[in-house]
Amino acid sequence: AKPRVGYTYKSDGMANKIDKLLRQYRVKDIMSMAVVVKEKCSIYDAIVTLFVEDTGSIFVLDNEGYLNGIVSRKDLLKTTLGQADIHKVPVSVIMTRMPNIITATVDDMVVEVTKKIVEHEVDSLPVVKCFIGTNNEEKYEVVGRVTKTNIARLLLDLACK
Amino acid sequence: AKPRVGYTYKSDGMANKIDKLLRQYRVKDIMSMAVVVKEKCSIYDAIVTLFVEDTGSIFVLDNEGYLNGIVSRKDLLKTTLGQADIHKVPVSVIMTRMPNIITATVDDMVVEVTKKIVEHEVDSLPVVKCFIGTNNEEKYEVVGRVTKTNIARLLLDLACK
Repeated sequence: AKPRVGYTYKSDGMANKIDKLLRQYRVKDIMSMAVVVKEKCSIYDAIVTLFVEDTGSIFVLDNEGYLNGIVSRKDLLKTTLGQADIHKVPVSVIMTRMPNIITATVDDMVVEVTKKIVEHEVDSLPVVKCFIGTNNEEKYEVVGRVTKTNIARLLLDLACK
Repeated sequence: AKPRVGYTYKSDGMANKIDKLLRQYRVKDIMSMAVVVKEKCSIYDAIVTLFVEDTGSIFVLDNEGYLNGIVSRKDLLKTTLGQADIHKVPVSVIMTRMPNIITATVDDMVVEVTKKIVEHEVDSLPVVKCFIGTNNEEKYEVVGRVTKTNIARLLLDLACK
């Protein structure tokens, strides 16, 4: 069910200016706090966290506190339909793992992360800082999250100034 | 977990023009197809529909085909944690019912529906046409859905023209 997009630009002379304005906004201007759990956290506890924090996705950290996975409301819903004992199975069993996670940085343009969110059909991205580990591997510290709600709020604020 | 909004307007002279431009877009310009089920549909079948159609919310229709309720991924996830037999219990037992549903019409401004979505903390709104029934009651035909993804796509299109 793809959206039917029927609009054309109603004010063509404006397009370039709008483009420039939108490109001034960065992830750090709109991001929210990240909601994180450890990978040993049970699926049940992850679901409880999701409701308590009222968020759509949870980021899963490894023992050192770096980003290792992500679980969405959709992943959790799928799991509750299956046979797994959600009180015992850790969230790491069902999470999407690095390096298959789409991330953002505080300095990314809002336009670019909006593109990532729409194209990859996800609700939010972890905002990360990259570090190089002792074995030259990349490690990601989670510093926030950027969601479709953050983007909607920006549009609203631009319109309601 | 409210977002930390740290931005200020970076191009104040533009604000009024942006406002005008954004206010030209209507729900009909960005909306998607609605995903609907009948109220006798089981919770399990509603979840399957949600995955098959890859949507976040499902609209529930009464016997005459008018809007009667809405169930979200969050409602369904909460239900799967409980004791209900999701193969037997109909979706009407857990849905949010009219008149407690926030709706939109095709001619609403995108700015106004964005405000509704953000303020009521929902992912999507049913787009409806209102009819007056034989007992003078209002009935709503579902003609589409408007989501945070539709709004994100509009912002993206405005920026990438």
